[in-house]
Amino acid sequence: MSVTDELIANSERYAARHDKGDLPLPPAKGVAVVACMDARLNPYGLLGLTEGDAHVIRNAGGVITADERRSLAISQRLLGTTEIILIHHTDCGMLTFGDDDFRRQIQDETGQKPDWAAEAFTDLDADVRQSIARIRADPSIPHTDQVRGFVFDVKTGGLREVKP
Amino acid sequence: MSVTDELIANSERYAARHDKGDLPLPPAKGVAVVACMDARLNPYGLLGLTEGDAHVIRNAGGVITADERRSLAISQRLLGTTEIILIHHTDCGMLTFGDDDFRRQIQDETGQKPDWAAEAFTDLDADVRQSIARIRADPSIPHTDQVRGFVFDVKTGGLREVKP
Repeated sequence: MSVTDELIANSERYAARHDKGDLPLPPAKGVAVVACMDARLNPYGLLGLTEGDAHVIRNAGGVITADERRSLAISQRLLGTTEIILIHHTDCGMLTFGDDDFRRQIQDETGQKPDWAAEAFTDLDADVRQSIARIRADPSIPHTDQVRGFVFDVKTGGLREVKP
Repeated sequence: MSVTDELIANSERYAARHDKGDLPLPPAKGVAVVACMDARLNPYGLLGLTEGDAHVIRNAGGVITADERRSLAISQRLLGTTEIILIHHTDCGMLTFGDDDFRRQIQDETGQKPDWAAEAFTDLDADVRQSIARIRADPSIPHTDQVRGFVFDVKTGGLREVKP
């Protein structure tokens, strides 16, 4: 049995006790979270979110690229969110390599250099500020006065706000 | 008090009972989940995931663009995952509009046409298969024999596999 089979079996237990079939499409709390995909970072537990509350957008690093700007534009323009919470975290994999080496390694192995930047970074706070700057620079995202960035500490479970 | 302030206050309760400070960086279950950002879709509850288990990648629609291929390449090449679970869902916002209209509306309002496709779709199953095809076509993602796609039913809480 694959891990996928195991997780799909779990979903049957979820469905059996599911009682949230009438929730509306727009997030109740009007907020979008953009967080790293890291396995130790659980935005539901951390922020006390439950079904229906918030859009959750995640990728390697919790960085802002064209796809996160797309998702935020849809979140705000079509589904009414107005606040954005960015979450990076300590001990992030993105701190452990460089774009050039990673993309070169893929090119050496596959013959194709990726058509994306890996978005590795060396300074957590600076990358949170970079993410905020990318959001604020995009006119397709209308609400940017409530964009705040945080670093989650994977050791303590705490959240620290990054000052502008 | 903003919603962000309220959620940050919740994080203090999370930190107070946090006992997972020793989890390793690589996901314990070796799996990456790519799901829609929808507020009603909680991958932790649905799949029985907890801290340390899996990478979770999310965006509007749960579609595969360059940024998801970047995240999956990092997940597999640097952090050892080998299985991918894709989750779209019923009543998705991406079924309610068209790329042309959405991008034109932004252009009319801001003077700038977005430099991204909105990735709206009209058929859930077809878009899940499209996402699998995009992953399989990318040589930077090494493990593509365990890529399976599902549709989450927001009414019943159930998960249905999309057949290839």
